[in-house]
Amino acid sequence: MIIVMKAGAAKKDRDEVLKRIRELGYRPHVIHGEIRDVIGAVGDERGKTVLQSIESMHGVENVVPILQPYKLASKEVRKEPSVVRISDEVSIGGDRLIIMAGPCSVESEQQIMESALAVKKAGAHILRGGAFKPRTSPYSFQGLEEDGLKLLAKARDLTGLPVVTEVINPETADLVAEYADILQIGARNSQNFALLKKVGQLKRPVLLKRGMSMTIQEFLMSAEYIMSEGNQSVILCERGIRTFETATRNTLDLSAIPVLKEKTHLPVVIDPSHGTGNHHYVAPMCFAAAAAGADGLIVEVHPDPEHASSDGPQSLKPAKFDRMMEKLKLFAEAAGKTL
Amino acid sequence: MIIVMKAGAAKKDRDEVLKRIRELGYRPHVIHGEIRDVIGAVGDERGKTVLQSIESMHGVENVVPILQPYKLASKEVRKEPSVVRISDEVSIGGDRLIIMAGPCSVESEQQIMESALAVKKAGAHILRGGAFKPRTSPYSFQGLEEDGLKLLAKARDLTGLPVVTEVINPETADLVAEYADILQIGARNSQNFALLKKVGQLKRPVLLKRGMSMTIQEFLMSAEYIMSEGNQSVILCERGIRTFETATRNTLDLSAIPVLKEKTHLPVVIDPSHGTGNHHYVAPMCFAAAAAGADGLIVEVHPDPEHASSDGPQSLKPAKFDRMMEKLKLFAEAAGKTL
Amino acid sequence: MIIVMKAGAAKKDRDEVLKRIRELGYRPHVIHGEIRDVIGAVGDERGKTVLQSIESMHGVENVVPILQPYKLASKEVRKEPSVVRISDEVSIGGDRLIIMAGPCSVESEQQIMESALAVKKAGAHILRGGAFKPRTSPYSFQGLEEDGLKLLAKARDLTGLPVVTEVINPETADLVAEYADILQIGARNSQNFALLKKVGQLKRPVLLKRGMSMTIQEFLMSAEYIMSEGNQSVILCERGIRTFETATRNTLDLSAIPVLKEKTHLPVVIDPSHGTGNHHYVAPMCFAAAAAGADGLIVEVHPDPEHASSDGPQSLKPAKFDRMMEKLKLFAEAAGKTL
Amino acid sequence: MIIVMKAGAAKKDRDEVLKRIRELGYRPHVIHGEIRDVIGAVGDERGKTVLQSIESMHGVENVVPILQPYKLASKEVRKEPSVVRISDEVSIGGDRLIIMAGPCSVESEQQIMESALAVKKAGAHILRGGAFKPRTSPYSFQGLEEDGLKLLAKARDLTGLPVVTEVINPETADLVAEYADILQIGARNSQNFALLKKVGQLKRPVLLKRGMSMTIQEFLMSAEYIMSEGNQSVILCERGIRTFETATRNTLDLSAIPVLKEKTHLPVVIDPSHGTGNHHYVAPMCFAAAAAGADGLIVEVHPDPEHASSDGPQSLKPAKFDRMMEKLKLFAEAAGKTL
Repeated sequence: MIIVMKAGAAKKDRDEVLKRIRELGYRPHVIHGEIRDVIGAVGDERGKTVLQSIESMHGVENVVPILQPYKLASKEVRKEPSVVRISDEVSIGGDRLIIMAGPCSVESEQQIMESALAVKKAGAHILRGGAFKPRTSPYSFQGLEEDGLKLLAKARDLTGLPVVTEVINPETADLVAEYADILQIGARNSQNFALLKKVGQLKRPVLLKRGMSMTIQEFLMSAEYIMSEGNQSVILCERGIRTFETATRNTLDLSAIPVLKEKTHLPVVIDPSHGTGNHHYVAPMCFAAAAAGADGLIVEVHPDPEHASSDGPQSLKPAKFDRMMEKLKLFAEAAGKTL
Repeated sequence: MIIVMKAGAAKKDRDEVLKRIRELGYRPHVIHGEIRDVIGAVGDERGKTVLQSIESMHGVENVVPILQPYKLASKEVRKEPSVVRISDEVSIGGDRLIIMAGPCSVESEQQIMESALAVKKAGAHILRGGAFKPRTSPYSFQGLEEDGLKLLAKARDLTGLPVVTEVINPETADLVAEYADILQIGARNSQNFALLKKVGQLKRPVLLKRGMSMTIQEFLMSAEYIMSEGNQSVILCERGIRTFETATRNTLDLSAIPVLKEKTHLPVVIDPSHGTGNHHYVAPMCFAAAAAGADGLIVEVHPDPEHASSDGPQSLKPAKFDRMMEKLKLFAEAAGKTL
Repeated sequence: MIIVMKAGAAKKDRDEVLKRIRELGYRPHVIHGEIRDVIGAVGDERGKTVLQSIESMHGVENVVPILQPYKLASKEVRKEPSVVRISDEVSIGGDRLIIMAGPCSVESEQQIMESALAVKKAGAHILRGGAFKPRTSPYSFQGLEEDGLKLLAKARDLTGLPVVTEVINPETADLVAEYADILQIGARNSQNFALLKKVGQLKRPVLLKRGMSMTIQEFLMSAEYIMSEGNQSVILCERGIRTFETATRNTLDLSAIPVLKEKTHLPVVIDPSHGTGNHHYVAPMCFAAAAAGADGLIVEVHPDPEHASSDGPQSLKPAKFDRMMEKLKLFAEAAGKTL
Repeated sequence: MIIVMKAGAAKKDRDEVLKRIRELGYRPHVIHGEIRDVIGAVGDERGKTVLQSIESMHGVENVVPILQPYKLASKEVRKEPSVVRISDEVSIGGDRLIIMAGPCSVESEQQIMESALAVKKAGAHILRGGAFKPRTSPYSFQGLEEDGLKLLAKARDLTGLPVVTEVINPETADLVAEYADILQIGARNSQNFALLKKVGQLKRPVLLKRGMSMTIQEFLMSAEYIMSEGNQSVILCERGIRTFETATRNTLDLSAIPVLKEKTHLPVVIDPSHGTGNHHYVAPMCFAAAAAGADGLIVEVHPDPEHASSDGPQSLKPAKFDRMMEKLKLFAEAAGKTL
C-alpha cells in the first residue's frame, strides 16, 4: 500500500503515520519527493487489518492499494485455468464452448419440456430455467418455486441435460441444490454476502452473475466469498452493466473476458440475453463472446416469447436459436474451441 | 401503455397486436401516424399481465409504459406526506429534521457508549451502528453480530436514543428486530427481494437504502415490496450512486430529494458519509440536503476514525460533528424545519 | 409524439394542450385512460417546431417522442448498407473487413515510415496517425501539425495506403483535407457542431468517433449534422464509452454494432485500442468486433511503445499486430467477410 | 509516480525500468515488497515527458500517478480563493452569491428585454442568453447569432446587467467577445481544446461548463488549458453529469462544490436548470447549491416557457424565479454570503 502525504505535511504527521504503519504490522519506506513524501507499506494487505483507516490521519492525502484484495480467485494461487465439472459429459473451462439455454422462467410442464427438447436438439449442453424469480415488481410473476424445480428435474430426465437455476435466498438454497446441477446467483444478489456464504458451503457448482454496477474487482471479491467457504467451483458470468445508454437494456462488457482471463483462473460465461435485452442483438453478441474467448454462453430460448411470463423481448425462438448455433460453430472453431 | 409499430408494419401484424391487447384485458386505440401507427392500450398496467411481451410480436418497434409501476408508495394512494413514528419522541417525515449518527460498526462497549453520548450531546435524535456488516471482502471485519445488537440496546438505555442497524439476512431479521428500533436495508441488498418481503412482515420501521445503480423508479418498487407485505413504515435513503467520477466514493444524488417528494409520500433521508466517502465533504452535503428538503440525515461519527474497523475515512470526529450540527440549524430553519 | 397528462388533469388544461398541438401543425388524438389521458400528436416531429416545450404546460406529466430524430442517417431513407469509397482499392461497408492501423501520433519520419511499412506488410488497408492531437493536458505533446501531415502523405506515397488523421478545428480542416484521405472527428469533438458542419462541407469521407457519454441516438444525430451539410460519406466508429469500470480505460460497447446495423445504413468501425486502453486486450476485442459484424477496425500499432509520445500502453508492437491479423482472418471469414 | 512491478518480475525487467526512469529525468526508489516490487519515481510529473509509457514495459503491472496534473488551477499555486471581476459592481468568488439568469436562447427583442427586466427586478446580477446555440439536432433552432449578441448588448444597456453567452467556435470567438462580459464554454465543448486555447488568449472572463462525462480532474485540466494561454479569469460551472438515472436530465453533482473548493482556487457556479432538466426541481437545487458553498448560480428563466425555442421544460417563469430568490436569501445567509 502507498500512502501519499499532503504537500508540505509536517514531520510530526509523517512520524505518526510511520508509527501507525508499524503498529499494523507493516514495514514503512519513505520516498522523499520534490513536493510531497510518499510512504510504501510493505506486508500482505489482505489481512484483517485496516490500512485504509490511515486515510483519516492528519497530513495524509490518500492511500493507494497495490495488491488485489482477492487470493483464491487469483492467478497467484492457481496459474492454469480451472475446469468446473458439471456432469460426466459436461465441464466448463476446457476446450469446449458450453451453451446453456432455455426459458427465463419455468411456466408449465409443456413449456419447459418443449424448450428442453428444442435446445437439446440445437446442440445446447445445459438447460436453464427460473423457478424462484427475483422480480423488480412485487406484482410480477414470482416463479413456480418448488413445482418449477420438479419440472426442471423432469426435463433433465427427459433430455439428459444438466440444469442451472437461480437461488434467491439462503433459506431455500438447500432445496434448490437438491434439484439443480448448477446454482445461479443473480445480478441483484451478487453482493448478498449471506447468500454467497451459504452457496459456498454447498456441494454444487455456482454460476455467479456480475452485478449491474459491479467492478471486475468486486466481482472477483464475490467469487472469493464463495471460495473462502470451501466451494471452488465458481463460474463467472458477465451479463451487462448499467450505463447511460438506453438502446440496450444493459451494456454487455465483452472486454471483461480478456480482463478476467488475465486476473483469474475461473471460467467465464457470457449472457447476451440480459446483456442486450433484445433478441435481435443476441446472435451477434454470442459470436463476439465466442471470438473473445468465452468459456460458455447462457441464452434465453422460449417456444412462444409473445406469451412469456418474463423476458419475452430478449428470448430467441427455437428456430432462430438453431440457426444461431449453426453459425456459432464457425466462431468457436476460429477461437480454438469445439461446441 | 403505448405500442409503437414499425414503419410500414403490415395490417396483419397490427391486427395480431390488437387481438393480443384485448386478450390481456386492455382496450386498444389506434392512432394512424404519417410514418407508423401507434396503439394506446387502456387499462391498469400494474396487474400480473405481461404487456411487455408484446415487444416480441412481429411489426412492433417498442412498448412504452405510461403508468408508474408502484401503487402503495405513490402519491395516487396518499397525497399528504407520511410521518413514520419511531418512538414517543421521534418521528420522521414531519417538521423536524431528524439526525441519525454514530459509528459505521459497533466495535466495543467503550466505543459505542462514547459515540452514543457524543452524538446525543451534539443533538442527534437516533443512534446508528452496524452489528451485522456486509463487507466487500470476506477477509474484512464482519461485525460483532448479536453482541453488537446487545451493545446498541445498552447504548439506547444509556442515552434514550432509538437505534437503527442493518439487517443482512431473512434468517437473522427477527433477531435484529428484537433489538433495533429501525431496520436498515443496505444498498447491496436493495433488490434482495427475499429480505424485502421478510422486513415487510415485521413490525418495525425500515430505512431502505437506494442501491448503487438503482433508478428512482426501482427504488420505489423496492419500497413497494416492503409495503405490499403490510409494513407501511418505510423511510427512503439516498446514499450516492455509482458513476464514472472517482473524486468521491459515490455521487450523492441530491436531486433525488425533489424527485422523490414529487412521486411518493414516504420520507427521504440522505447519507452524505457513504455518498461522498470523505469526511471533508460531509458537512457541506449535510447542509445541501437540509436545504433541498430532506427529512433526515444519517452521518457516520467515530471517536477515533484512524483506528476504526470500517469506513474511517468518511467518519466525523465528535467535535467536528458538533460544529456541523451548530451550522446545520441555520439551514434547517431556512428550509422551514427545526432540528 | 405522445403527451401524457397528469392523473386528474383538468379538462381546461387538456384543451390548452390540444390547441397548442394544432398550432404547431400536428393532429391530436386523445386516448381516455382509467387514471389519466394520453394524447397522440400526429405529424413529422423532425421539423423545427418544438413539441417538447409542451412539457412546460399545466397538467402535462411528460412528453414521449416516437420518431427517431435523424433522417439521412436512418434506414427509412436508405435500406441497403452504404459503401464509402476511400480510394480505387479501398471501400468501407462492403464485403471486406477494413483494417486501419498505425501509431497514435506521428512523431518522426523514421517512426511513421517504419509503422506504415509494418502495418502494410501485416495486411492493413489504411494508415492511421495523428498530426493534430487533442490532449487532456496542455503540457502534453500536441502533435507535429502540418509537418505531421506531410509525413503521413510521404508514408502514403511509400506504401500506397490511404491515410486517416484527426481534424480538431474548423480553421485547420481545409489543410488536413489537402493531405488526408479520411478526416477523423475525435470522441471529444463528437458534439463540436461547428466542426461537424465544416467537415460536412468538405469532399472527404469522415470517420466519426462516438463521444464518451454519447447515446447511439446522439451519435446518429452527429452523423446527421455532417450529412445535412452535403457529405454522405460518414463512417461511424465506436471507441468505448465511459462507465464506472476502471479495469479498462473505457467500456467498449460492441452491442453498438448490431444496434447501429438495425438503425442506420452507415458503416461501423471499432477501435479496441482506445476502447480498452491496454494492448493485452486489443486482439480479443478485434476478434469479437469482427464476429459481431463490424465493417472495419482501427488499431494502434507502434514500433516502440515504451518510447511513444502518447498512448503507449494500448499500442501493439508490429510482431503482435502481425499475429493478430493472422488469427483475425478466421473470424472475418466466419462472419462472411474477407480481409 | 509509482510503478508497480508484476509479481515475480525478472531483475532484468526491473533494471530496464530503472534505466528508463533515469533517462526521463526522475530519480527512482525501489521498495522491495513481499510479492512484488514497487518503484517510486521522484520528480515533477507534469512536464512533457511521458512516464505513462513505462506501462508498456516488460514486467510492469501498472503506473500510478501521484501528483495532480494541473498547476495554475491548483491550490499549490494560489491558496486563497480567486475573485473574478466581471464589472465595477459584480465579481464572482467573494462574499456574494452571484445569480446569472435569463432564457436559454435569445429569441426576439421583446423576449430578451422582458426577461432581462424580470430577472433584474428579482435580484439577479448577470443576464444569460444564448446567441450561438449548440443543438443536438441540425434541424433545431441554432440561435440568432450576431443579431442575438446585439440584442443582449441592448438588454445590458437597458438593465445594467453584464451578459454571459456561449462561444461555440474559435472563428466567432472574437465577435462574441466584442459583445459579451463573460464567455461561456458549453459542456459539449469542454474538451474542444482549440476553443479553450482561443478563449485563453482573449481578455474576457470564461464560464467553463463541466462536460457530461468529465471527471473533476479533467475539468481542472480544461481550466488549465485556458489559464496556460494567459487568461486566469476562469469560473467553473457544474451542470450535471450523465449517469444511468433518467428521472432527471442529468445528475447534478453537488459534491463537486466541496471537492473543487479543496483542489482549486477558482470560483464554482452551479447550473440546476441543465442539471435537472425540470423546472420543478430547480429551486430546491438552487438552495442546496447555496448551502454547499457555491459562489454562484446560473438559472434559466423564460417569460413563456410553453413557447420557448429550447429548454422550455427546465425554465422558470419570472414569478416563480422571484419567489425562489426570496427564499434563496435565507440559504445564502446561512452559508455566510449575501445575495
